[in-house]
Formats: sequence, C-alpha cells, structure tokens
Amino acid sequence: MSAVEDRLSELGLAVPEVVPPVAAYVPALRNGNLVFTSGQLPMKDGAMPATGKVGAAVDADAAKELAALCALNAIAAIKSVVGDLDKVTQVVKVVGFVASDPEFTGQPGVVNGASELLGKAFGDKGVHARSAVGVAALPLDAPVEVEVVVAVAD
Amino acid sequence: MSAVEDRLSELGLAVPEVVPPVAAYVPALRNGNLVFTSGQLPMKDGAMPATGKVGAAVDADAAKELAALCALNAIAAIKSVVGDLDKVTQVVKVVGFVASDPEFTGQPGVVNGASELLGKAFGDKGVHARSAVGVAALPLDAPVEVEVVVAVAD
Amino acid sequence: MSAVEDRLSELGLAVPEVVPPVAAYVPALRNGNLVFTSGQLPMKDGAMPATGKVGAAVDADAAKELAALCALNAIAAIKSVVGDLDKVTQVVKVVGFVASDPEFTGQPGVVNGASELLGKAFGDKGVHARSAVGVAALPLDAPVEVEVVVAVAD
Repeated sequence: MSAVEDRLSELGLAVPEVVPPVAAYVPALRNGNLVFTSGQLPMKDGAMPATGKVGAAVDADAAKELAALCALNAIAAIKSVVGDLDKVTQVVKVVGFVASDPEFTGQPGVVNGASELLGKAFGDKGVHARSAVGVAALPLDAPVEVEVVVAVAD
Repeated sequence: MSAVEDRLSELGLAVPEVVPPVAAYVPALRNGNLVFTSGQLPMKDGAMPATGKVGAAVDADAAKELAALCALNAIAAIKSVVGDLDKVTQVVKVVGFVASDPEFTGQPGVVNGASELLGKAFGDKGVHARSAVGVAALPLDAPVEVEVVVAVAD
Repeated sequence: MSAVEDRLSELGLAVPEVVPPVAAYVPALRNGNLVFTSGQLPMKDGAMPATGKVGAAVDADAAKELAALCALNAIAAIKSVVGDLDKVTQVVKVVGFVASDPEFTGQPGVVNGASELLGKAFGDKGVHARSAVGVAALPLDAPVEVEVVVAVAD
C-alpha cells in the first residue's frame, strides 16, 4: 500500500473504487508527466449523500465534507491511471465548482474540504494552486464538483 | 486532407473557418506539446443557431447539438495552430460550460455532444478527461461553451 | 527591475504584494515550465473596491477595471514563484469567471480588462487562449475572478 493510502487509512479513509463517468469520457488521463482528472462529484458507494445548492438546501459545513469526498474520488481516479499513488510528485492545480445560491459567497471554505484532504494525503506534495467558483447548477444536482491536476514521476 | 477531416467528412461535417475571438485573445495557443483552445461558442457561419439558458429557452437535446458545434469550432481552432490535425496525439481535457437554469442538472448529457464528436473525429486518441458545469450566463447568451486541451507530436 | 515591471510602471502600475490565499492553497505553483496561478480576486491594498454581480450591482465598465486588477494580482502571484518576470516566455491561458446576473452576457468585454493588461505587460508574449464565463457567485462576493497559466524559461 502506498504511503498516501497509509495516511488516508490513519484518517479512517480508503481510496474508493473509481466512480464510473456519467458520460463519454474517462475518470482521469495522463499526458506526459501530468494527470488530469475529470470533474469529480461527491459520490459515495454509488450514491450522492446530499444534493442541492450550497447556501440553500445544503449548508457550508456539509458542503465542505462533500468537497473532501470529491477529492477522495479524484485520488481514486488518479490511482486508476498511475497505479501507485506515491508516484505523484506534486498536486498542481485544483478547481472547485460550488453549486451556489447567488447570495452564497463562501466558496473558499467549501473547497478547503478538498484542499485539506489533498494536503493530508500527499503531505508537502499536496500544496497546490486553486480556483473556487460558485456555479448555477452541477450534474445530478451535486452541491460540489472538483477537478485536479497532478504531476507524476516518469 | 487529414484522417481526422476524412472521418468528419463521413459524418457530413467540414472543419469550419476559425471563429474570430470576441475579444483580446487568440483562438488557440500551442506551448510545448500542448494546444489550449479558447472557450468556443456554438457559432455556425458567423451566427449562433440558438441562445438562452438550457432547461429554459433551450432544451437538452438542442444544447447537445450546440455542444457538438462548439467542439467542431475547437477543432478549427486547433487546426489553425497545428495545420495538420493528424498531429494530434491525444485529446487531453475538455471543459463544458452549460448556461443553465438553476433547476437544470443534465449538463453531462449536453457536453456529451462535444465528447462524442471528438471521439468520432480523433478515434482512440479522442478519449479525454472532462468537467461539465452549469453556469449562470455565457458570452452572447450562448447556451454552451467548450474549451479543449490536446497534445500534439513534435 | 524587469522589463515587464517597466512597462507596468509606464502605465502607473506597480506589481503589488502577493494577495494571501483565502484558504489552504498557494497563490501560484510552478511545475516544469508552467506556472499555474490560483484564481485571483480584485483585491487592492487588502480590500475589494466593489462587490456584487455584474449586470446588477456592478456595471460592465467597472467590472473590466476589476478584471485588470485580478490580472495584476496574478502577475504578483507569478512573480512570487519565478522572481524575475522576464523569465515568462508566454502567457498561455486565462480563465475569467464573471459573477453575473443571469441576463448579463457581456463577459468577454469584462475579461478583456485582464487580457489587455497582460498584453501591455508582456507584449508579444502576452497573447493567450482564453475562456470567459458567467458564474452564479464568487468568493467574498467578488464580481470577477481570473486564473492564469504562463510558461517560463528553464
């Protein structure tokens, strides 16, 4: 088991099965030394724990946990193409899309759920550049969607 | 003519003239072995076949066709910088922005219009990572906007 | 002082201190020859000159100036990781997120504020691929958020 998975295990987390794409694409793709994940929804055991807009049906704390779940699914997607997660040399970029009531402006706190999990999983290599934005709606009425770019060793 | 254009031709499609940017940027830019397109709108012969929000003025089926049109314009943008589309070694990443009524959550089905066209055009090389999100509004009231990253041979 | 900063100085602009992240990430990150900035908000001297949605509380002209401020903060973020801005060989990609009233569709004009400033700062190297989208809400109720990818020399 990779050191990354050891650290997740200490948090009581396991890398899940990769979430099958909702459509005509792949969960993650490697090109050169970069791996691009598809936008990950907060699926757990094949279902979404909550749906709706953050700031309305879903509160910020619940959304932060869902963002962590998106990040865990991104880790699963990365593992599906690199095999050994310890090959990841750097988390490069994260974009967090938060389905937002137009009055909700706490997107950074929500997407911290993803950033913090990546930090715990990858340690020093988990630091990344990031954008957090509030969108009108997400697939399957997900409250959060997260995409990740990582660098991997040759 | 490239094999990519041959395949499009079999679908009754031709790579259009590149759509002039609405503003101060270029349709696509190559850096190293990656080509990044600008966000492509569903323009056809200089006009947009439909405008408005998906789930309201525009239905999902019509939006899916518009997404395919965005992808065709992305192919034109890529061609404008690489010349020969057969130099594309991999479609790497697609982001599909769908101008959405807040109640509309079928973004994956819409963006499939782009993913499927890229698959038909590039074959095995057309498989990609992808994010689909529902945004509040798009330039010129476009229902869909698609950006693409591809890898090209040296 | 770099030639980039000389050009900004002629416009009466200085590269500001880098804006501290709102959350668990870094302002910019270099991987290989690419630098990815985090999404930059229009902060000036630690405060945001205006908040709200473009097309409602904020008009397009004001938003364009805010987009330029985002780009200036992106330049600061890039400088924080490369030191000398003249090492930038190409501005590669810009994404401009405009917090939009659903009826506002002038995102390209707003994001031109960022594109034009990058052009003035980096000259021929400032030309880039770009997406402009209208989102439901942004962090801290910012009207605009801009992220930038640049290439740098070894």
